[in-house]
Amino acid sequence: MADTLFIHLFATLALSLSDYGSKDDFITLERLLDHINTPEDLRKLKPSQLPQVADELREFIIRVIANHPGHLGASLGTVELTVALHYIFNTPYDRIIWDVGHQAYGHKILTGRKDRFASIRCLDGLSGFPSRFESEYDAFGTGHSSTSISAALGMAIASNLKGEKDRQHIAVIGDGAMTGGMAFEGLNNAGAARSNLLVILNDNGMSIDVSTGALSRYFTRMKASKSYNQLKDSVWNMMGGDSDKQYHPKHFISKLTAAMSSLISPKTSNLFEALNFRYFGPIDGHDIPTLLAVLSDLKTIQGPKLLHIVTVKGKGLKQAEEDPTVYHAPGRFDSATGQLLPKRIDLSLAPKYQDVFGKTIIELAKSNPRIVGITPAMPTGCSLSMMMKKMPERVFDVGIAEQHAVTFSAGLAAEGMIPFCNIYSSFMQRSFDQVIHDVALQRLPVVFCLDRAGLVGEDGATHHGAFDLAYFRPIPNLVISAPMNERELRNLMYTAQLPETGLPFVIRYPRGRGVTPRWKTPLEIQPVGKGICVKEGKEAAIVSIGHIGNNGLKAIELAESQCPAKQFGLYNMIYLKPLDEELLQEVFEKYPRIVTLEDGVLNGGLYSAVCEFAARHHYSNPITGIGIPDRFIHQGSIPQLQALCGMDPESIAKVLLGR
Amino acid sequence: MADTLFIHLFATLALSLSDYGSKDDFITLERLLDHINTPEDLRKLKPSQLPQVADELREFIIRVIANHPGHLGASLGTVELTVALHYIFNTPYDRIIWDVGHQAYGHKILTGRKDRFASIRCLDGLSGFPSRFESEYDAFGTGHSSTSISAALGMAIASNLKGEKDRQHIAVIGDGAMTGGMAFEGLNNAGAARSNLLVILNDNGMSIDVSTGALSRYFTRMKASKSYNQLKDSVWNMMGGDSDKQYHPKHFISKLTAAMSSLISPKTSNLFEALNFRYFGPIDGHDIPTLLAVLSDLKTIQGPKLLHIVTVKGKGLKQAEEDPTVYHAPGRFDSATGQLLPKRIDLSLAPKYQDVFGKTIIELAKSNPRIVGITPAMPTGCSLSMMMKKMPERVFDVGIAEQHAVTFSAGLAAEGMIPFCNIYSSFMQRSFDQVIHDVALQRLPVVFCLDRAGLVGEDGATHHGAFDLAYFRPIPNLVISAPMNERELRNLMYTAQLPETGLPFVIRYPRGRGVTPRWKTPLEIQPVGKGICVKEGKEAAIVSIGHIGNNGLKAIELAESQCPAKQFGLYNMIYLKPLDEELLQEVFEKYPRIVTLEDGVLNGGLYSAVCEFAARHHYSNPITGIGIPDRFIHQGSIPQLQALCGMDPESIAKVLLGR
Repeated sequence: MADTLFIHLFATLALSLSDYGSKDDFITLERLLDHINTPEDLRKLKPSQLPQVADELREFIIRVIANHPGHLGASLGTVELTVALHYIFNTPYDRIIWDVGHQAYGHKILTGRKDRFASIRCLDGLSGFPSRFESEYDAFGTGHSSTSISAALGMAIASNLKGEKDRQHIAVIGDGAMTGGMAFEGLNNAGAARSNLLVILNDNGMSIDVSTGALSRYFTRMKASKSYNQLKDSVWNMMGGDSDKQYHPKHFISKLTAAMSSLISPKTSNLFEALNFRYFGPIDGHDIPTLLAVLSDLKTIQGPKLLHIVTVKGKGLKQAEEDPTVYHAPGRFDSATGQLLPKRIDLSLAPKYQDVFGKTIIELAKSNPRIVGITPAMPTGCSLSMMMKKMPERVFDVGIAEQHAVTFSAGLAAEGMIPFCNIYSSFMQRSFDQVIHDVALQRLPVVFCLDRAGLVGEDGATHHGAFDLAYFRPIPNLVISAPMNERELRNLMYTAQLPETGLPFVIRYPRGRGVTPRWKTPLEIQPVGKGICVKEGKEAAIVSIGHIGNNGLKAIELAESQCPAKQFGLYNMIYLKPLDEELLQEVFEKYPRIVTLEDGVLNGGLYSAVCEFAARHHYSNPITGIGIPDRFIHQGSIPQLQALCGMDPESIAKVLLGR
Repeated sequence: MADTLFIHLFATLALSLSDYGSKDDFITLERLLDHINTPEDLRKLKPSQLPQVADELREFIIRVIANHPGHLGASLGTVELTVALHYIFNTPYDRIIWDVGHQAYGHKILTGRKDRFASIRCLDGLSGFPSRFESEYDAFGTGHSSTSISAALGMAIASNLKGEKDRQHIAVIGDGAMTGGMAFEGLNNAGAARSNLLVILNDNGMSIDVSTGALSRYFTRMKASKSYNQLKDSVWNMMGGDSDKQYHPKHFISKLTAAMSSLISPKTSNLFEALNFRYFGPIDGHDIPTLLAVLSDLKTIQGPKLLHIVTVKGKGLKQAEEDPTVYHAPGRFDSATGQLLPKRIDLSLAPKYQDVFGKTIIELAKSNPRIVGITPAMPTGCSLSMMMKKMPERVFDVGIAEQHAVTFSAGLAAEGMIPFCNIYSSFMQRSFDQVIHDVALQRLPVVFCLDRAGLVGEDGATHHGAFDLAYFRPIPNLVISAPMNERELRNLMYTAQLPETGLPFVIRYPRGRGVTPRWKTPLEIQPVGKGICVKEGKEAAIVSIGHIGNNGLKAIELAESQCPAKQFGLYNMIYLKPLDEELLQEVFEKYPRIVTLEDGVLNGGLYSAVCEFAARHHYSNPITGIGIPDRFIHQGSIPQLQALCGMDPESIAKVLLGR
């Protein structure tokens, strides 16, 4: 049986999960995965057993992630690669760096974390990304995109310097991540270095949404090239085609290697060869024998080399293959059928901020032809996809390229457009210089919408939008705002695009839902630099910015219900910059104690601004800052993490009551 | 005469300035440049007059920059290109974006700024870079590298949306700048867009130092290709070779165009073609007829296209051609001979901070084999070139690629090395995310040496290292320090590399000289998080960080000499993070008034930290913050700009005396 299954196991499998789950093999045969705790165990198996390991690994991932939501599609696409890499390479001595890291679930399972795998992305559980603090097999922590080549090159050069000539360094990077500028910087440097570095381009035509840009089209042309298809046929024939001829691994591998040497490096490969990489591929990334043969070969080749593998995101789960964007991180689903579990449609729920953004920008763009939308590879995540459907010529998905996104927006603004550039807060760190140098310095009216600002929950330390208020506040000419609810988000967007505003304008809002189910309020000006009193009080005032102010309100309810004699005020600044000093003066005059509240780091954000204000005006009212403390916060649910940081209503109430 | 001179004018000229200056042509012939105030005037000339304009422009630049120091080499290399661009394109309607902008002096002179050109880089004078505030011909402000393609694409897309189909958008980018990741992001997006965009790759094999990386080698191979040399010969023959045949521009251009169409787009061009750019070149960038012909042609070709021109940095000034790194920005020189004016060698002068860095890292590296040096294209500027000479295998010039520089350093540190990653403060903004995500989050002991921190003087707004203290302070796990003198710089470097330190460690220091002529003090530990009292006082205390503390000392001398009854203290924090709260407590207890002093923005830096400290400990001592205010500071000498910001000794003394 192994003979024909070997190469085309997944091609010949009907790939719906119902077929998959019902295959007797997986129930009656001994599960190899049960005996694999480390790659050492994996390496004791015969090559012919590896497809079974891959199948079991895939099934394990599906089963666990169905009930413990996480990133699914990327890891299903790299199951065979993961097995092959740990089989061929001497991990952890050899270093594998998984770019971004969504695709590393299989890697985690094979490297001693199978038993804890269900804790992935939970508080105190496994990180959703590789982490040096978690395992010696995680050679380098990732989360943001396009870092792997630079990191792997650094490690390879270190090995050179230490005389560890035999150590292998492998960066696994998706075609989406390859569009990030720093991947190119890494390639440019690696190509010129005497480094023992293998870059594996995992080409599935996707980042979260479909990959865009010229590079993506180039990869498509390469896959369509004759040599790729020729190689597939050649392997198939070597395997005996449809015959029942016996399979001999060693014999096969040497034949395959010989066959490949004439096939790889097709004429289309020269983008990487121009950068002095030896290019191999494209090969089928779900074909374990070919992967084994090629990786064994590559181990013996010195210098920088790139292996282009073609994979299917969501491989092995029909729905995930068909709708890879939804199944990138699908939430709960039925592990047997692959169907998403129906979400309760609760009309009483407030909308997601991202959808308020998505719908409001269409509304604004209808009446203001100067408005355009820009997203670096997150059209679905930030809901700019809505505008993309209605006005495709006015929305630009620039791929994973935050730096370009900002300067491209600046170019648009220089010619009179009003670009709404939507970037997740933590990814905006990538374009910090461009915001200063290309936008703020030139006072160009780019509207930066920072989605996923503040604590984002399960994605953890790399993804929290913790720093934005602090890193933007020092920049001259920027208006910095954060809405407390849907209406304010809409009004800020409206205000930002008015000709009389005419300044770079930051609007940051969190992941998740707002507070107003009937959110579609009329658009009004949100006066720049003006905060508002949400609730008056006496004992102490909360001075807050953004959605977290709602925790402040709840805290006041709690505190006042516990001590009915006390009354607390809540002041919603809306703008961090310009800061409403008039309102603050009122607050400092009226309240003996001040509590600042922000969903961001205390160092440098609203707390700093209020302390500076107090110093400038010689106020000595005690100021307590509530926000993200000066350490990296790991994964967990947002309420859990808020509690950890003292930003939940209960903790805030305690501060109000001085407990 | 024009006939033979036309193409090979500069090739046949003996290129020493003495020859150049003595050519009667330039003195006796009417100067065309005198009649050119705008490109409109230029476009009235015959093509055959343009080489003379180029010569005069070059001579003008040399003459002015000899006495008004600025960036020389880059602009000398683009004189012909500048003339050709403004001749062929309809500026300012057509947009030219000069990447970085060092090469735009000729452009400034031809676009209405000839008379003010001598004010370049001076207070209230012309900026050293293109600036939208200065001229409508400066379509987009630059200064940092690799932004031009993204900006030009944004402008091209805006033109599309506005229906201005005839508007041309030209990005002129050097081969050095092309290694920056965002240039690649721009290419990747431009290649996939229906944009009317021309990228001109100005290939001189240099950034400030020699270009590095695989891309640079690729360009070298292209220049060595047969087609390039074939084209040169072909043009030469069309011109009649060495014969005296009469020259007819129109005839020539049509012939040339025909000749070129078979020559351009050689087989080696596919790096750009992979990205869907139509590639043309390489052609000689000093050959005006060819430039005119090719640019005219390119104007009629829709879609993204790249023209590869080969130029000589410093062209026309022998010394500058021979030593382009020194003549990048040579300071004063003799405009007649090209010789640098001898600098007074004054042994009583303190050394430059950069040289203390350069010498100290060698000293440390000799005894600590784990130390390596990393620079993104600034080996000479940061003096890492010294170590490069002594230990070439342990220094890495990664090209203009700050993001890669940081993550590459992180990779090295992950394998046990101690990378000293030296990046100019304002360029470090490019790697903000990498510092957070790849270094701080993983607690990797990378030592960031930020040269050119604080006000840098003549380079102006894009180059001041104004933000670093503020943008680094919010990042957990970072140690942030700034030395007040050479000894502290050395001790901080020593401390940073000790195994017991083991944290990411920032050392920021300014452009220019320290204060200690006999700087080579023994290396000692600079206790982490400990400041020192430099001088005790009574009335008020200056709490300072970094070299600017010396202005504080001078201010105290001034103030005490003016009011001998008063005494002022100076406290040198050395570390912004961890902050020496014990020392601050002492200061706040002892002094009624506190003055913070930093060479950086007030919002978010030391001033913020001290205000937060005061709030946390309920101190109500008045705090005055002295530092860079919340606006962009333009060019001028450092003392001028310090006075502008109130950071000069006189202004500080006034604050001390409460005037």
